[in-house]
Amino acid sequence: MIKIQTKPLTSRAFAPFGDVIETGSVDPKIINQGNCERFNDLAKMDFTDGRAGISLFSAKPRSLPYTLDLLERHPHGSQAFIPMSQHPFLVIVAHDDGGKPSDVHAFVTDIGQGINLHRNTWHGVLTPLHEPGLFCVIDRIGSGNNLQEYPLPTPIIVA
Amino acid sequence: MIKIQTKPLTSRAFAPFGDVIETGSVDPKIINQGNCERFNDLAKMDFTDGRAGISLFSAKPRSLPYTLDLLERHPHGSQAFIPMSQHPFLVIVAHDDGGKPSDVHAFVTDIGQGINLHRNTWHGVLTPLHEPGLFCVIDRIGSGNNLQEYPLPTPIIVA
Repeated sequence: MIKIQTKPLTSRAFAPFGDVIETGSVDPKIINQGNCERFNDLAKMDFTDGRAGISLFSAKPRSLPYTLDLLERHPHGSQAFIPMSQHPFLVIVAHDDGGKPSDVHAFVTDIGQGINLHRNTWHGVLTPLHEPGLFCVIDRIGSGNNLQEYPLPTPIIVA
Repeated sequence: MIKIQTKPLTSRAFAPFGDVIETGSVDPKIINQGNCERFNDLAKMDFTDGRAGISLFSAKPRSLPYTLDLLERHPHGSQAFIPMSQHPFLVIVAHDDGGKPSDVHAFVTDIGQGINLHRNTWHGVLTPLHEPGLFCVIDRIGSGNNLQEYPLPTPIIVA
């Protein structure tokens, strides 16, 4: 049994896989007569076709240690996950090695962080760690198969 | 002094102004081996040019009664606001009458509701009612002036 440890999510560590959507990453533009900070354009949206859409995902909360037995990726579009509660969530990603995932990494977000998975990045399914498990998802709306799944021959324990 | 009362936000009442982004509005698609519900494509994104982007807004919480003295609109794009905490927020919108706002409506969201303002809809600035006032905003990234402001000759008290 393979076991990996979670790490705190940082934009630097996550850069090979996607964007961390957080307020700390850029200087804000001050708007609304000083009452609001705008942290602008934090995610690289990338769709081969179709268009961007806004959806909601309501996912069952999990807990650590978590048994990972499947990775997936979306060849036609990036996918952003924005938590709609003040809770961390678990983010699992992997590098690609000739069409298969390899070198799995697990991160736990800080409160207020979202992520944007770059197009074709191997990742685990959405894994909240707390109720209500509600997320806004900005991803590709389009036709055709945009899902590749890879069941792991040996499950990985994420601790 | 004009005074208006807030109403609970419903998709029906908000339809002339935009979309309510909420789980109750459509039947979900069940994904991730039964562990996640996907409520698909809940907002009409509409940009005359440019592209959709994901930004974060951190806004100062307000309280009721709130004095409204300015409305604004964005002629080139829709604008979605997704709360990143489990709190209601105040949404103020108005109809258009020959290039000026008229007939102002104020809504208080339910927990877990976001909104998408249709392109060119008159609205108040982002007004959280609770800390932390953190929102994900999906709107137009592009050049040129996309802001029209209308200072109200007589402020409106929103109660």
